[in-house]
Amino acid sequence: MPARRDLANAIRILAMDAVQQANSGHPGMPMGMADIAEVLFNDHLRMNPGNPDWVDRDRFLLSNGHGSMLQYAALHLTGYELSLDDIKRFRQLHSKTPGHPENFMTPGVETTTGPLGQGLANAVGMALAEAALASRFNKGDATLVDHHTWCFAGDGCLMEGISHEACSLAGTLGLGKLIVFYDDNGISIDGETRGWFTEDVPARFEAYGWQVVRKVDGHDPEEINTAIETAKKETTRPTLICCRTVIGWGAPSMQGTAGVHGAALGDDEIAAARAELGWSDETRFAIPDEIYSAWDKRQAGADAERDWLATHKTYAEKYPEDAAEFSRRMAGQMPRNWSALCREFIEHTQSGGKRTATRKSSKATIGAYAAGLPELFGGSADLSGSNGTDFDGHKPIAAGDFSGNYLYYGVREFAMTAITNGMSLHGGFTPFGGTFLTFSDYARNAVRMAALMRSRNILVYTHDSIGLGEDGPTHQAVEHVASLRLIPNLHVWRPGDDVEVAVAWQAAIERANGPTALALSRQDVDHQDRDADQLAAIARGGYVLREPADAAEALVIATGSELELAVTAARTLEGEGIAVRVVSMPCLELFNAQSAAYRASVLPAEVTARVAVEAGVSDPWYRLVGANGRVIGVDDFGASAPGDEVYRHFGLTADAVAEALREQVRG
Amino acid sequence: MPARRDLANAIRILAMDAVQQANSGHPGMPMGMADIAEVLFNDHLRMNPGNPDWVDRDRFLLSNGHGSMLQYAALHLTGYELSLDDIKRFRQLHSKTPGHPENFMTPGVETTTGPLGQGLANAVGMALAEAALASRFNKGDATLVDHHTWCFAGDGCLMEGISHEACSLAGTLGLGKLIVFYDDNGISIDGETRGWFTEDVPARFEAYGWQVVRKVDGHDPEEINTAIETAKKETTRPTLICCRTVIGWGAPSMQGTAGVHGAALGDDEIAAARAELGWSDETRFAIPDEIYSAWDKRQAGADAERDWLATHKTYAEKYPEDAAEFSRRMAGQMPRNWSALCREFIEHTQSGGKRTATRKSSKATIGAYAAGLPELFGGSADLSGSNGTDFDGHKPIAAGDFSGNYLYYGVREFAMTAITNGMSLHGGFTPFGGTFLTFSDYARNAVRMAALMRSRNILVYTHDSIGLGEDGPTHQAVEHVASLRLIPNLHVWRPGDDVEVAVAWQAAIERANGPTALALSRQDVDHQDRDADQLAAIARGGYVLREPADAAEALVIATGSELELAVTAARTLEGEGIAVRVVSMPCLELFNAQSAAYRASVLPAEVTARVAVEAGVSDPWYRLVGANGRVIGVDDFGASAPGDEVYRHFGLTADAVAEALREQVRG
Repeated sequence: MPARRDLANAIRILAMDAVQQANSGHPGMPMGMADIAEVLFNDHLRMNPGNPDWVDRDRFLLSNGHGSMLQYAALHLTGYELSLDDIKRFRQLHSKTPGHPENFMTPGVETTTGPLGQGLANAVGMALAEAALASRFNKGDATLVDHHTWCFAGDGCLMEGISHEACSLAGTLGLGKLIVFYDDNGISIDGETRGWFTEDVPARFEAYGWQVVRKVDGHDPEEINTAIETAKKETTRPTLICCRTVIGWGAPSMQGTAGVHGAALGDDEIAAARAELGWSDETRFAIPDEIYSAWDKRQAGADAERDWLATHKTYAEKYPEDAAEFSRRMAGQMPRNWSALCREFIEHTQSGGKRTATRKSSKATIGAYAAGLPELFGGSADLSGSNGTDFDGHKPIAAGDFSGNYLYYGVREFAMTAITNGMSLHGGFTPFGGTFLTFSDYARNAVRMAALMRSRNILVYTHDSIGLGEDGPTHQAVEHVASLRLIPNLHVWRPGDDVEVAVAWQAAIERANGPTALALSRQDVDHQDRDADQLAAIARGGYVLREPADAAEALVIATGSELELAVTAARTLEGEGIAVRVVSMPCLELFNAQSAAYRASVLPAEVTARVAVEAGVSDPWYRLVGANGRVIGVDDFGASAPGDEVYRHFGLTADAVAEALREQVRG
Repeated sequence: MPARRDLANAIRILAMDAVQQANSGHPGMPMGMADIAEVLFNDHLRMNPGNPDWVDRDRFLLSNGHGSMLQYAALHLTGYELSLDDIKRFRQLHSKTPGHPENFMTPGVETTTGPLGQGLANAVGMALAEAALASRFNKGDATLVDHHTWCFAGDGCLMEGISHEACSLAGTLGLGKLIVFYDDNGISIDGETRGWFTEDVPARFEAYGWQVVRKVDGHDPEEINTAIETAKKETTRPTLICCRTVIGWGAPSMQGTAGVHGAALGDDEIAAARAELGWSDETRFAIPDEIYSAWDKRQAGADAERDWLATHKTYAEKYPEDAAEFSRRMAGQMPRNWSALCREFIEHTQSGGKRTATRKSSKATIGAYAAGLPELFGGSADLSGSNGTDFDGHKPIAAGDFSGNYLYYGVREFAMTAITNGMSLHGGFTPFGGTFLTFSDYARNAVRMAALMRSRNILVYTHDSIGLGEDGPTHQAVEHVASLRLIPNLHVWRPGDDVEVAVAWQAAIERANGPTALALSRQDVDHQDRDADQLAAIARGGYVLREPADAAEALVIATGSELELAVTAARTLEGEGIAVRVVSMPCLELFNAQSAAYRASVLPAEVTARVAVEAGVSDPWYRLVGANGRVIGVDDFGASAPGDEVYRHFGLTADAVAEALREQVRG
């Protein structure tokens, strides 16, 4: 049996060699945390390399994602489907070993990291999901859900604000099965952190209510093991294990410096490191068989999952409905009666709808859908009532009672979004979280990460324009809808009435491969009439809401709270004998994904007199109205005043829309 | 002399009445913090209501900006140019009393707040500016700069991640003249914070290295005063004064509940509060003369400034050059030789330029300009070397030595941006801060705030596209340049070579009424030839870089690292007899601000064969190339691989540009 140090050195060798081969990457962290990873992966991590999707596996997250080679090395060594050839293609196009871990590229990678601090918040979300699922499904005599969430984090993660948001909340919630290793190596890219990071991290985390294991020698397997045991014994507080490490441990002339953080070591230093580590084989990427054998977790993993499957079988015999529901939820499938439930609610809303704020329609929709969708898990960054996320039937989670379906996140937009990303990735939940649209800014990179990770997450953004009124320009979204539309793979809905809200929610919930943002009004908007075809067409993202009796001379495109302005303007012009088509465009991404024929049927090339109206920056619409078309938008910051006055001040009125259409028709 | 409580109650009365009149706003915080504000404004704040711009005034920031009526009431009562009529127009269009404090609307308001936590980070920036100016200008025998920065912050501010970033750094820097009052009222919008905010705030701030004054009764003027005295005595650590308060204090049936946070109290509750407070006058907004007299700080403020002016006069006699330099910097004027310095450097770069990364050109430019511009204050969020912000001549600030011109912010993008906003608002500095363009997401709302506040701030965003290569999609900006362009009043430069970089920096530095973002390449780009007219035209944001010998049949618009692709494509087509104009468009905002005639001269209507190329989402360009034009961009997330491979993978090549131009010419 090889010594533990030799096992850890296998990570160091692979990391050095892969970075050298790519001539790009970060050897410092993998070499510094190798001993910790070795103890964790070999003696504690509940996993099955043969089935990375085993639902009751432990979750491991590398929040300091630049150290990706540590994770790739550990996955490779323990027997995941990640070959030495994959390792050799580190940081190459289409390889399974990209520069930072990507959950959609590599088996065994639970989340995508790199943007610092977010992996830590994802971990909080996964630990929360575990606790909530355990509370829902475990029985006194049968435990279906019982796993830990482990996270590596560096100085960078802990400097980032999101670490504060997520860890403060994790302390409040008492997430006892969350265990974080802090890689305290005193180095960040700019050099020794004592110049800019001098806080007492252990004291800070104790202030959050965490168990803190202090001063662990991150290169001593015994100390690491003892710390892990201490962490596992604690069940009502998350644990931070503070590990003193040397960045780039083993690189004789570079370890302990910023120089080893993010660049290849060079052949000479690698040779010297091999000597220092007592690693006799100088062949790049060569790992001795006995080291592979000692790392191999394929059998142990298969055994662990087999034991769990036996438990599951017993459970399923006693609680067949719960077992089926658990499987359905973990597979992310919709309940059987889901489509009917949505159809009924949407038709009911169409026939019985009324003038109301879309944020209020949203609350009603959530309530209706949640009744048939127990995996729906809501929350808000301290704006529950304003966001309407506090649907009928919501039940808050609290420390010691994870049986709810709602979380008061506090004023923590960024952590909320990254935590819901983690819940979604864990499986078992369709999360949504609310804030004002303007404050999507605070969470923006987590929204991007959801889109990049193809993660189902629903972002409820209310108070979506200058229409919110008196709170003024700091709170009035102007560029936000347009700016969210620029994020690849994000669907942005800005529904125009209660019916479009209901359709948007169904689409968001059913979307399995990415997040959806809903921009919702504070103020009331008209309910619109639709026939069955129009009702069905909402899901296409854009459709003809109102067709004039005569062939349309002009068309007006509108979204959200401006839809009623467009309809009013079209009615006015009808009285003047000008035929105007009204196109509702609640989701540009879905409309753009329709066939060219459908798009042309909604926006016929021959109708060149075009106006778009949306209470936000005008940029997105020029592509649809053309260079000679007209966009009525808001291209400056808003102002503090009652909402209807602000609308008039910025010229967002039915009269202005009508006049723009007249001008367009005149040419 | 009225009792202190009666003085404080004047704030409560004005806050209740103004919110009631507007039927909108937040009475809870002003009523809860009134006693603290009363002690601070009446006994400690160094200010002159007659001159809100006195450079050595104390700075007061309301980070919990929803409590704006507290600040308006205090400014009104102490004698600032904010009348009772202004108060009565609370939250009305164009009033001096908008929903949240706006520095550009109201005399005495130092910054714009509302987005929580940022005022606190602004305060850190102001305290830093004070310390750095004091270090530069104060002499053993003459003190020109000596004032405190005071900040009110609520639970929401302290939950936000930015509070962690900013306050951890403030502790490291030992900003002894920063004093923060924590309004510990146990209530946020969703209710009692014990459900989501249970951290030990005093212990957390002690972990940051702050002095913490615990358990102050926020309704006891003596305790408040003692705490302030304790804070002022401490000179090497910032101080957090933790004040237990009752939100909405004085509203008998609503105080201490979330109900009093953000809505008008109603006439009955206001009447009951008047009785509770012992306020006999039931007339709305009526404040007794003796209370006005006791609050009036006009004479005391004039005296304080007069004393300072006497000090200044003595200083100016002994140190005339320093005094003139201080005045120049605080006025935000450029040095006399500034234009010549820029012109020489730009001409030198034009004639002697070379192929290099624009981030490296940026570093050279900063070094050249900083030599003549001592107010330039740099920094980076732990990427100094990569961002090239560590210019020749940079000198880091450290605790106890504020004589430098550079700050290692650590991995704290959001705080960095809000801190530099604070430095800029304080005066005396032109700050800039660097990170990777992707991580502008982390700071996005602070960028927006800089634009809203018309604040000079320079955002150095390097690694601006998929061109950064191996770090992969988490690090590769795709939508970011386009998305920053959507923020009103933000100038976004994406310079195409070393010369455009030098012009961009000059424009950014000279821009007095808003921030500028610079998107810079990791990879090398060609240096471009220009004649004198072209050189001068760069500052217009868009210009003809290359004109074919024959009349142009087509034009290609490019920015940044894609400029060389456009030039190469045009050369190729020239060889084929196709005349192509190359338009460089480094700053769309400036180009759009040019006259219609100039814009038409660059983009003639008759040239309809148009291509735009930019390594980012294609949306911004359709307005310029038209519905039938072609945009070569990146409309998906990037990939981890060497940069040139990623470019080829996404079809960003000179060949692709040439082919698109051919297709456009063919029609």
